[in-house]
Amino acid sequence: MNQDLMHRNPLRQKMYEVIFGTETPAGKRFDVILIYVIILSVFALMLDSVGGISSVFGFEIRLAEWIFTLIFTVEYAARIYCAPQPWRYIRSFYGIIDAIAVLPTYISFFFPGINYLLVIRLFRVLRIFRVLKLMRYLSEANLLMRSMSNARRKIFVFFSFVLIISMVFGSIMYVVEGPENEFTSIPRSIYWMIVTITTVGYGDIIPQTILGQIVASAAMLTGYSIIAVPTGILTAELSQEIQRERASAICNACQKSGHEMDASYCKYCGEKL
Amino acid sequence: MNQDLMHRNPLRQKMYEVIFGTETPAGKRFDVILIYVIILSVFALMLDSVGGISSVFGFEIRLAEWIFTLIFTVEYAARIYCAPQPWRYIRSFYGIIDAIAVLPTYISFFFPGINYLLVIRLFRVLRIFRVLKLMRYLSEANLLMRSMSNARRKIFVFFSFVLIISMVFGSIMYVVEGPENEFTSIPRSIYWMIVTITTVGYGDIIPQTILGQIVASAAMLTGYSIIAVPTGILTAELSQEIQRERASAICNACQKSGHEMDASYCKYCGEKL
Amino acid sequence: MNQDLMHRNPLRQKMYEVIFGTETPAGKRFDVILIYVIILSVFALMLDSVGGISSVFGFEIRLAEWIFTLIFTVEYAARIYCAPQPWRYIRSFYGIIDAIAVLPTYISFFFPGINYLLVIRLFRVLRIFRVLKLMRYLSEANLLMRSMSNARRKIFVFFSFVLIISMVFGSIMYVVEGPENEFTSIPRSIYWMIVTITTVGYGDIIPQTILGQIVASAAMLTGYSIIAVPTGILTAELSQEIQRERASAICNACQKSGHEMDASYCKYCGEKL
Amino acid sequence: MNQDLMHRNPLRQKMYEVIFGTETPAGKRFDVILIYVIILSVFALMLDSVGGISSVFGFEIRLAEWIFTLIFTVEYAARIYCAPQPWRYIRSFYGIIDAIAVLPTYISFFFPGINYLLVIRLFRVLRIFRVLKLMRYLSEANLLMRSMSNARRKIFVFFSFVLIISMVFGSIMYVVEGPENEFTSIPRSIYWMIVTITTVGYGDIIPQTILGQIVASAAMLTGYSIIAVPTGILTAELSQEIQRERASAICNACQKSGHEMDASYCKYCGEKL
Repeated sequence: MNQDLMHRNPLRQKMYEVIFGTETPAGKRFDVILIYVIILSVFALMLDSVGGISSVFGFEIRLAEWIFTLIFTVEYAARIYCAPQPWRYIRSFYGIIDAIAVLPTYISFFFPGINYLLVIRLFRVLRIFRVLKLMRYLSEANLLMRSMSNARRKIFVFFSFVLIISMVFGSIMYVVEGPENEFTSIPRSIYWMIVTITTVGYGDIIPQTILGQIVASAAMLTGYSIIAVPTGILTAELSQEIQRERASAICNACQKSGHEMDASYCKYCGEKL
Repeated sequence: MNQDLMHRNPLRQKMYEVIFGTETPAGKRFDVILIYVIILSVFALMLDSVGGISSVFGFEIRLAEWIFTLIFTVEYAARIYCAPQPWRYIRSFYGIIDAIAVLPTYISFFFPGINYLLVIRLFRVLRIFRVLKLMRYLSEANLLMRSMSNARRKIFVFFSFVLIISMVFGSIMYVVEGPENEFTSIPRSIYWMIVTITTVGYGDIIPQTILGQIVASAAMLTGYSIIAVPTGILTAELSQEIQRERASAICNACQKSGHEMDASYCKYCGEKL
Repeated sequence: MNQDLMHRNPLRQKMYEVIFGTETPAGKRFDVILIYVIILSVFALMLDSVGGISSVFGFEIRLAEWIFTLIFTVEYAARIYCAPQPWRYIRSFYGIIDAIAVLPTYISFFFPGINYLLVIRLFRVLRIFRVLKLMRYLSEANLLMRSMSNARRKIFVFFSFVLIISMVFGSIMYVVEGPENEFTSIPRSIYWMIVTITTVGYGDIIPQTILGQIVASAAMLTGYSIIAVPTGILTAELSQEIQRERASAICNACQKSGHEMDASYCKYCGEKL
Repeated sequence: MNQDLMHRNPLRQKMYEVIFGTETPAGKRFDVILIYVIILSVFALMLDSVGGISSVFGFEIRLAEWIFTLIFTVEYAARIYCAPQPWRYIRSFYGIIDAIAVLPTYISFFFPGINYLLVIRLFRVLRIFRVLKLMRYLSEANLLMRSMSNARRKIFVFFSFVLIISMVFGSIMYVVEGPENEFTSIPRSIYWMIVTITTVGYGDIIPQTILGQIVASAAMLTGYSIIAVPTGILTAELSQEIQRERASAICNACQKSGHEMDASYCKYCGEKL
């Protein structure tokens, strides 16, 4: 019904195809340009946060800020106008992000004192996730996503396991090292354990006692060993996906590859697959 | 025999199914609730160890401590009551952990001076391993466990090898750097070597001489290379397990996949698998 | 045409085979000797940069510098002389590197004051990439290159994803920790995030607040998890390559392996593969 | 010839089987006991290097030192006595290690002033490699060794590549950061690059300039990406080895596994494999 109504207004239908779609050349071009504008706006935000630059180029950055806000406002309005179900878009993940990207600048204009909006403005960086939307059209990204999605539950089980180990080792280290050696509380010991087990190793919290160093060595070797688990899971899944993609695509008659997974006949020689 | 006796007391049998079993809905719900209570009690322990919180909310934390102890005491008593072989439960790994989770609070009540019981109380965190018991019912965890169990001996051989390399490199570094550069003893050099080979790299012990830095570089590249071994072992095992699970599920007649591992006939064409 | 002309001048043709080619024994020997000279010259550059050595052996190093420059000049001239299309060589990647390797020494002779040429001289180190050219003749290097080339696009997609995550987490940490805790700007926060997500963990920038440590822990576990992705991609590709190389080499009749990939008949029993 | 002579002296032959061989129960027991003695002697060496322990238990450690030296001397003499070709044993890798394990103690007895022998004594730790000799009889170690041996050349190619990258990046960082920021020489920059690319990250040398941090980020992401290569190589090899071991071992008739690779008939049902 709603879609039928759309078909009667060619402008909105055309805009919808360009702004939301990525199938048409114009739709793809729109998305690519939008990504560049988003990246530029994020770049401006970053420069603004660098002390030396923001004090010298304060005016230019504020100007860029307003230009980007206007562009995003027009884009936001256009999206609402041409969306088949405007409310659904407004309440969607991207709809909220798009609103957050423009609102802080306006609010800071009407209520100049509210400084913490500077912080909310930073959420504009989340718009960069739109890049991911475009990536969907790369078959490589699709393959990766499918493998990660398959591995989802296994990796969740694995992380629960890592957290349990971190809690147990963290508590042991709190007992062994104690508050006099930087292990001032159990949460802090768990933080140390995560820093150690992931092999990041900042060196801000370090075991000082000999027993603590032995426990830490055991923790490191454990981390070194279980670092293999997510790799193993993902590699197995990726291998499966790549193998499936290729194995399904070799014709017994002409040995040509590149068939779709659901094909029943070779598209080069007509032989039954 | 013992089991036959059980069947005559429906209450104990019912309790056994709920408390020890996880097959019935009630048994699963009991375990899930228990896990939440354990996580809450561990959370209280953690807050207690944070200086700022324990001094302000001392009373609330001690109250929570007693409530959790009472809950665990009731649970412990119920487990002993309904276990088919109570002594076997009491002396089992979980039985001992369950006792350790409640005893320190009572002892500290009767003998208030014994402060080091605070430390033993921390072993309550081991109760969190009960989560693993629940995980057994996730097929993902099963697959991971089976792969790890298959890789068990290979990883043990590998760790012996890592320890030997750490001892040899550690001794060499003790000779090269010597006590004047933080390498005060061979055990400490081995600790440094484990920190380095696992790529944790705290930076508390650092080679200062040029020869030491060359040896350290060799050690790092060795670590970088052998980090591959556990990954390789586990990936190979996981691949095998996943492949076996899926390969066993391809019908020779219709080439369709997705059969259960224990299926004898293809569910799509009825052909014997 | 050009090549026909070459065939008429046997000296240039012979020189071309020796200097550019690696198929003939003389051509291979030339390349191996050249690699050793390049490595020696890079070694001299390195010693020159070490304060203690350059002040004591200043004359010897400058002498070596001139000897290597002369050798490389003769080689450069010979390459231009015998190349079938001299301009194409001069403008190629290796041609530019070869010129950069000799020019700075001459310029510093005629214009002694230009010290920053010392820096350009360092680009001579890029000549070491010639080693890679020789590696092409190792089948192992070929296999690795082919796998990496296959994985190229997937790894590019992955790095875009890592950069997006780094930007988002970096901005969050800038908000959470703020300039008072070393996170003085967003670019610096992103630098911290890359140091953390790659598990390098220098420890020069460290989260100080509890919320910051929680976010950092999440970032570390994310890094620990996605470290698996490039491994998974490459392993799957390498497995494919190795499998293809070997699978293509099993005879259906005698089950023997070790056939070349382009073989049409089994070399042990003559059966068609 | 030499072996024929051996057969005529039953004592030497028997000793040879026990000391050098591992096939007989006595031979295996001898090796296991020897490994324990070696580990104990290494443990004594380690304790000797710990300041606090060596000053208090100086006498006990020196006594243990002499007891271990006597045991190893007897073993060394027995090995020479029963070896079929004594000179070959003496000049072999293990023969030299065995001599180094006993000589320093005697020399320090006759020439008490030579303190640096303490250092040579540390090479006794190399005797621990005998553990590896015993490991050969674990099929897991064999599988790992075979895979690593297959991957040998690929990993060598890979390390050459890592070293070239380290030299190029190290030189760039020397130019970018310069001696005023701890990058005092190119070798030191290369050391920093190895610490970074292997994700160890001590934090003793840290890029201070913004350009340096950008180059360092690129280096880290490179390291993060190429950490995959050895893993990929080894995983592919291990997969092959495990697959070969198992695939070759399933009988089509009775579905039983565990056949040797060179078997032509199933050892359970006699069916041709």
